[in-house]
Amino acid sequence: MTRVIGIDPGLQCTGFGVVQKDGSQLQYVASGTIRTTSGIALGDLPGRLKMIFEGVQEVVRRYEPDQASCEIVFVNVNPQSTLLLGQARGAAITALATCGLPVNEYTALQMKKSVVGHGHARKDQIQEMVKRLLNLPGLPSKDAADALGLAITHVHAGGSFAAMAQATTLNRRTHAQFKGGRTY
Amino acid sequence: MTRVIGIDPGLQCTGFGVVQKDGSQLQYVASGTIRTTSGIALGDLPGRLKMIFEGVQEVVRRYEPDQASCEIVFVNVNPQSTLLLGQARGAAITALATCGLPVNEYTALQMKKSVVGHGHARKDQIQEMVKRLLNLPGLPSKDAADALGLAITHVHAGGSFAAMAQATTLNRRTHAQFKGGRTY
Repeated sequence: MTRVIGIDPGLQCTGFGVVQKDGSQLQYVASGTIRTTSGIALGDLPGRLKMIFEGVQEVVRRYEPDQASCEIVFVNVNPQSTLLLGQARGAAITALATCGLPVNEYTALQMKKSVVGHGHARKDQIQEMVKRLLNLPGLPSKDAADALGLAITHVHAGGSFAAMAQATTLNRRTHAQFKGGRTY
Repeated sequence: MTRVIGIDPGLQCTGFGVVQKDGSQLQYVASGTIRTTSGIALGDLPGRLKMIFEGVQEVVRRYEPDQASCEIVFVNVNPQSTLLLGQARGAAITALATCGLPVNEYTALQMKKSVVGHGHARKDQIQEMVKRLLNLPGLPSKDAADALGLAITHVHAGGSFAAMAQATTLNRRTHAQFKGGRTY
């Protein structure tokens, strides 16, 4: 049995979804969102990062996943948003890593291909397919659907994507060492 | 007596510096860098964020500061670097916030004005002034000098900057509530 937590990080709202694979059976465990918009001053970045960090840790402690799956974000048109998203993502990934979870990263394209079957899926198509794959009684929210989709992506294709990523890293390191051991 | 930790976050190298003010006396406590470039695969972002988080927490536990001071970063010309820096900054600030430290943020301009006296100071001028202000026997490294400079900035002008920042936040919130209570 494997239990995977998917995380879709954001400064205002971080989605999470936990699924498990028992033999060939894919099962829903939990999903929800960690919001940092109430009970805190909007300018209090450290306080909001702490809420994301502690929220993710609490979800991990409650549902005890073995693996984590997180979206690889691409840079936004607005550089200030990119920085804010980076900080939220840093807090969420640090929470997963300090819980000892291996963190696997997938692009939105990989997630859409894995869940819907093609990379141009709309948000509502992801919600619909997540509902069907997990036999949910209703549509999950958009943030929760993305997070569940990331968890499903890792369950479906985790092995092969992880092997590819590792091979690429090894190649890059060998190449860097050959060039004189520079780190970047 | 106030003890302040300054943090200059970066994915490869995070500088830290701790100073204390005892009456009117400014004293050096410790400084150094947290490096994430050895003993870890370069592509292992979660592992590197964990190293920053745990490194900052270890420094806080060892030197027990009452306040933290962190550089406000501006967006880089390269959006990918902005994202990486954001993630490193997220891990460092989360570490400070989870230790219960109030995190104060200053721009590089504020730090240079506070330490050197004008905003166009070069790195070597910051190092020289930090050495003089703290009576150090030699020049601190550039990363450590920036971190010590941030800590000194908070000691020097912490009260007034903090009061200004708080007033601005309150104004912004009141304005938002007036416009119908939207969070963003």
